[in-house]
Amino acid sequence: MPTSFRARPEPPPSPRACVPFVSVANMMNLVHHIGTEAFLRELVQYLEADFRRWPEFEKTPRVAAHSRVGVIELMPASDGRLYAFKYVNGHPKNVKEGLQTVTAFGVLADVSSGYPLLLSEMTLLTALRTAATSAMVAHRLAPEGTEVMAMIGNGAQGEFQALAFRALLGINRLRLYDIDPGATAKTLRNLEPLGFDLHPCASAEEAVVGAGIITTCTADKQYATILTDNMVGAGVHINAIGGDCPGKTELHPDILRRSRVFVEYTPQTRIEGEIQQMAPDFPVTEFWQVLADPAEGRRDTREITLFDGVGFAIEDFSALRLVHDRLEGTSFFEPLDMIADPDDPRDLFGMLQRAAHPSAPAPGATG
Amino acid sequence: MPTSFRARPEPPPSPRACVPFVSVANMMNLVHHIGTEAFLRELVQYLEADFRRWPEFEKTPRVAAHSRVGVIELMPASDGRLYAFKYVNGHPKNVKEGLQTVTAFGVLADVSSGYPLLLSEMTLLTALRTAATSAMVAHRLAPEGTEVMAMIGNGAQGEFQALAFRALLGINRLRLYDIDPGATAKTLRNLEPLGFDLHPCASAEEAVVGAGIITTCTADKQYATILTDNMVGAGVHINAIGGDCPGKTELHPDILRRSRVFVEYTPQTRIEGEIQQMAPDFPVTEFWQVLADPAEGRRDTREITLFDGVGFAIEDFSALRLVHDRLEGTSFFEPLDMIADPDDPRDLFGMLQRAAHPSAPAPGATG
Repeated sequence: MPTSFRARPEPPPSPRACVPFVSVANMMNLVHHIGTEAFLRELVQYLEADFRRWPEFEKTPRVAAHSRVGVIELMPASDGRLYAFKYVNGHPKNVKEGLQTVTAFGVLADVSSGYPLLLSEMTLLTALRTAATSAMVAHRLAPEGTEVMAMIGNGAQGEFQALAFRALLGINRLRLYDIDPGATAKTLRNLEPLGFDLHPCASAEEAVVGAGIITTCTADKQYATILTDNMVGAGVHINAIGGDCPGKTELHPDILRRSRVFVEYTPQTRIEGEIQQMAPDFPVTEFWQVLADPAEGRRDTREITLFDGVGFAIEDFSALRLVHDRLEGTSFFEPLDMIADPDDPRDLFGMLQRAAHPSAPAPGATG
Repeated sequence: MPTSFRARPEPPPSPRACVPFVSVANMMNLVHHIGTEAFLRELVQYLEADFRRWPEFEKTPRVAAHSRVGVIELMPASDGRLYAFKYVNGHPKNVKEGLQTVTAFGVLADVSSGYPLLLSEMTLLTALRTAATSAMVAHRLAPEGTEVMAMIGNGAQGEFQALAFRALLGINRLRLYDIDPGATAKTLRNLEPLGFDLHPCASAEEAVVGAGIITTCTADKQYATILTDNMVGAGVHINAIGGDCPGKTELHPDILRRSRVFVEYTPQTRIEGEIQQMAPDFPVTEFWQVLADPAEGRRDTREITLFDGVGFAIEDFSALRLVHDRLEGTSFFEPLDMIADPDDPRDLFGMLQRAAHPSAPAPGATG
């Protein structure tokens, strides 16, 4: 057995062995390079392009490993040319330990070779794509001329939602409420320098007054009732994104009964969304149908439209696709030596042996 | 919107934000540091420890995205404390393009927080764990005193199998055959310096003469017949690892009928293994049962035992667990800034904003 040891094999890994990696720092660099609102607008373009060709995608509900304290999920999607998956956890108790409730990373790959094209942090990217998805949906469903949005739940996702709604719908007036005043204070502190017109409120009831859009985004894993039926007036659009796993909902069922409910991917939303409270045949419209045919959207000014958003793999696919396209010509990535690339693809073992004896000639050199 | 731009945010990412990454180069370093055969023996110990507690694992057949030219799979497994998944592709046509048929990487994560503990290349690690699994199984099932192994198919997996069988069963005499003489020549070149007693053969029939163990490991995606019934004598152990996806088998069904067939995880092997050729109730024994009760193993010296190996997620779990344990105190990894770690976990947006204005004080500093 070889006993010699070197810190690095020679020669260095070939470009084929390397996968571009976007760290958290580089994701922030990329977003600021483009501008956060511009990035969100571009992301909506990618999302709409992929939602429009919805039937082309291989879709599967996420693959979840549940434990007592949280969940770890894999979310794959493919259009037959590109393949993407995201690893994402959800651990509400993490916040008390100074950790993120949700962290994520993901990979974009080439279907024709199976080789990864991109590895990326996706904690930030998930926050951006969740906000972009909400804004994409509201842009098609919210009452025209909406100027005020209520935001109930002012956690990590809040500011991203605010920026996406301003970027796409021009909404600048926000009414904020959280059971934790510290969360609202944090949101005010972050959004004030960006020129928003902000109204902290003492209750959810106060927050919804005069709002054409109501965003609910709370994080407790329980059947909660953030909105009750009497709080929701005719004609509003509800952007309900906090209920996103079994046992976690935010809305009273009576609101669902009065609303037209829009979802991403019905089989997944029946398990994870607000509609887990309803019968399995409760009528819903998949949002891609609204893009395909605007008649599937809002029907009149008094209708309550409700986006029961849980997050779907195609959104991550779109987000990774955008990042991959926008990396070209930048330095916002590091090449990662992730793929074994022996000179002769059948000679994986020879590559391993030569790493121990880097001075030995490759077999091609000796015949 | 912030317009200033810096290459790196301040301060640098915290340790909590960083995931240890084992590159291909560092995996080779780690393996040589331990010694390849010693690594394989340790890996068998980890595999046996995990196979012994088989019922504790959350098991799911792999999640596959098939295309015309190959497959991309996600293979998750969890024991309730640790979670692992592997990304792996299988593209037989890749070899012609100078690419690997199989490439892989994987992640080990902490179930209690959902945070990744390790990101690792797994092309090499999969080759090692596949060989270690074969040797673990043969160690319990092959006829006692076996000194000769036939190896039909001398591709990328071949040498790893040879080393694992020597490390665990002391087998040093190999009879090699491949339809491509170049593949056999490559294997001879790699194994000769390691002291093996090697016999290249002109046919599969010649290779199996006098062999107590027959390893079949070919890569074409088709129903092939590498072994026919008349080639297999009483008492041998067949290590059949090349047939590992729907439409890809190596053995004539008559051999299966004469053998006691051992599998990893029955629901997956019925789809992917040699037994896809048989009725859905064709009797098999899951290998973990042999560890739990040796009476489930070989019954007499004339019995043909057959390991219908397809590779299961728990084997990757074991391999990542070993690498994670053995990294401690070494420098065979790089910290990867993969997890967003804001000072206040609810303040993901504040972290993003401060990256654009690194001179601005954190909110804690200003109150």
